Amino acid sequence: MTSSATLALSIELLQQPSVTPNDHTCQQIIAKRLEKHNFHIENMRFEDVDNIWARRGTTGPVFCFAGHTDVVPTGNVDAWTSAPFNPDIRDGKLYGRGSADMKTAIAAMITATERFVSKYPDHKGSIAYLITSDEEGPAKNGTVKVIETLEKRHEKIDWCLVGEPSSTDRLGDIVKNGRRGSLNAKITIQGKQGHVAYPHLAKNPIHLATSAIDTLCKTTWDQGNEYFPATSFQISNIAAGTGATNVIPDVLDITCNFRYCTEVTADELKARVVDILNANQLDYHIEWNLSGQPFITPVGDLVKATQHAIQKVCGYKTTLSTSGGTSDGRFIAPTGAQVIELGVLNATIHQVNEHVNIADLEPLSAIYEEMLVQLLT
Amino acid sequence: MTSSATLALSIELLQQPSVTPNDHTCQQIIAKRLEKHNFHIENMRFEDVDNIWARRGTTGPVFCFAGHTDVVPTGNVDAWTSAPFNPDIRDGKLYGRGSADMKTAIAAMITATERFVSKYPDHKGSIAYLITSDEEGPAKNGTVKVIETLEKRHEKIDWCLVGEPSSTDRLGDIVKNGRRGSLNAKITIQGKQGHVAYPHLAKNPIHLATSAIDTLCKTTWDQGNEYFPATSFQISNIAAGTGATNVIPDVLDITCNFRYCTEVTADELKARVVDILNANQLDYHIEWNLSGQPFITPVGDLVKATQHAIQKVCGYKTTLSTSGGTSDGRFIAPTGAQVIELGVLNATIHQVNEHVNIADLEPLSAIYEEMLVQLLT
Ligand SMILES: [Zn+2]
Ligand SMILES: [Zn+2]
Repeated sequence: MTSSATLALSIELLQQPSVTPNDHTCQQIIAKRLEKHNFHIENMRFEDVDNIWARRGTTGPVFCFAGHTDVVPTGNVDAWTSAPFNPDIRDGKLYGRGSADMKTAIAAMITATERFVSKYPDHKGSIAYLITSDEEGPAKNGTVKVIETLEKRHEKIDWCLVGEPSSTDRLGDIVKNGRRGSLNAKITIQGKQGHVAYPHLAKNPIHLATSAIDTLCKTTWDQGNEYFPATSFQISNIAAGTGATNVIPDVLDITCNFRYCTEVTADELKARVVDILNANQLDYHIEWNLSGQPFITPVGDLVKATQHAIQKVCGYKTTLSTSGGTSDGRFIAPTGAQVIELGVLNATIHQVNEHVNIADLEPLSAIYEEMLVQLLT
Repeated sequence: MTSSATLALSIELLQQPSVTPNDHTCQQIIAKRLEKHNFHIENMRFEDVDNIWARRGTTGPVFCFAGHTDVVPTGNVDAWTSAPFNPDIRDGKLYGRGSADMKTAIAAMITATERFVSKYPDHKGSIAYLITSDEEGPAKNGTVKVIETLEKRHEKIDWCLVGEPSSTDRLGDIVKNGRRGSLNAKITIQGKQGHVAYPHLAKNPIHLATSAIDTLCKTTWDQGNEYFPATSFQISNIAAGTGATNVIPDVLDITCNFRYCTEVTADELKARVVDILNANQLDYHIEWNLSGQPFITPVGDLVKATQHAIQKVCGYKTTLSTSGGTSDGRFIAPTGAQVIELGVLNATIHQVNEHVNIADLEPLSAIYEEMLVQLLT
């Protein structure tokens, strides 16, 4: 089975227990492979996070493979059929933590690049790699810092392929050409503690807030657009009360999240929440945390190259999507780069017995190679 | 100062650290005093709770003094100006845990009884005492069990004076001739956990429940009546969420309480809550806990005797009220007894530096004595 170059490199990477932010030599393995093909490697360590920026060529346009070597924790190791960092092949599937998210995609990028530069040693523009070990964690010292460094020296990415597992039912059926923004709020509603038998001497923050909460939950924030579903609002946590049944609580805490599209801005959403709270005459405090702005890569060179490559390798049409969580694409897109996310099936990511179909690995590598052919030859 | 008999007995009782359910000899002190005046004493211990039932006379009507020797915990002893179980007199006030709730009232009952039976050794009917040491706690082995025992042997109380601190601004300004019922509910709303980025795959129980909660908070349950304010509903606790900002919770827990009047029954309230939850098509579970039914003592012998006694001793009119928390009156009233609550000022009950005005003690004793005169001579 390991006659596949992508599978072999995948196994090598999966053997490293690279739980965020520990890269555990994955980036050295990658750098060694790229150096052989005349990539210039820059190690960009920020605090406890290893990152590399690798580039072959000095001219534009720049095609960048982006990804992460870190993985989420294994959870209960005993729940795994095979040890999470001892990659195992069963029934045509490769098991291991990070197999789907996203070490096999990195392996496919490398093997695609190796074949491409062997065939087209004098390709136009540049091929680059932006690899971090802090995508699954706080994401403070990873891609965002590398991009800051590049921006300072005016080094631009034109096209970026992020290897996140975008596929849903079969390889390449879905690619992400954008992501919604994510805006968090911690809302504290102030009341006045008291005894349930004397409600007129207290102010129950739950009762005061019910109308506002109801309005927040029922508001249509926008209608979405051709690329995005409508903005959604979810309360993830709500808490008030001392535990005693006879005490009216003094404070109500709410944590909520917007996944928002390009039809609204974070500032507009903030203003509308404030309006709703004010309309209900609440005494409140809000702590906002903007964890990612929305971005979209409209149909253009990169999207077309991706669609073409999937059609050619897989024989079917891919679907553009902007659903799901955030990714490091949010840090790259604001520089003006076109960004596409394309990787293996995401069904088992972050789960016990995470795995990929081995049969998908060489086709993924072939898709990546075809994208290079489309864009750099 | 201790020339006052009521003050002297109060101090003796206050020296006992009788935190629920430990009576710490208070009931022995009481029993010794009553025995001297031909009361027949029955100790009724249930599990870890001491109670006494004392009675002078064998015929009806039965006038019963009811009260509790147990006190709530002291809280931080260092926050007290004088030690909570070392009764201290400062500025005309008697300090100590239980001074207001309700050892001074018990002392006043005893001294009132002593004077009365000396003057009227052949009073009509009977005088009784129902004293428990589990009023501030679970109230499972106190008054409720004594009443069960009396009911089994068909021993009836006609008039009951509960010595709870009913006074608000001056002695006797308020007496309680009833109490609202108290009905607790733990409501669990079932949803389906998921990721905030994929709300269509989850069911957010907070979002599902907002309309129902809003309706519960805004419902007018009744209009009250001449004796009771309108039934009130308060949510004391609400909780949902794992703490993570990106997870839609699977369950919402709500704890709520009705303080209800005689215009509705507990069963009616339950049915109306169920209707509201059903109307919102919620998947829910409710655990009900009826902690006290409402009771009312309309104007009659006992109320008139109380009003007259306060007018005579204090020189002003008292006000009938049914506000506030529950009391052991809820266990006595259902037997058909008329029940009144009358005691010292309640401003400092359950607080640090609990105290009473010493000047109120003999007048309270005089009121109690005058009630005996009104009803038993
Ligand atoms: Zn990932
Ligand atoms: Zn009390």
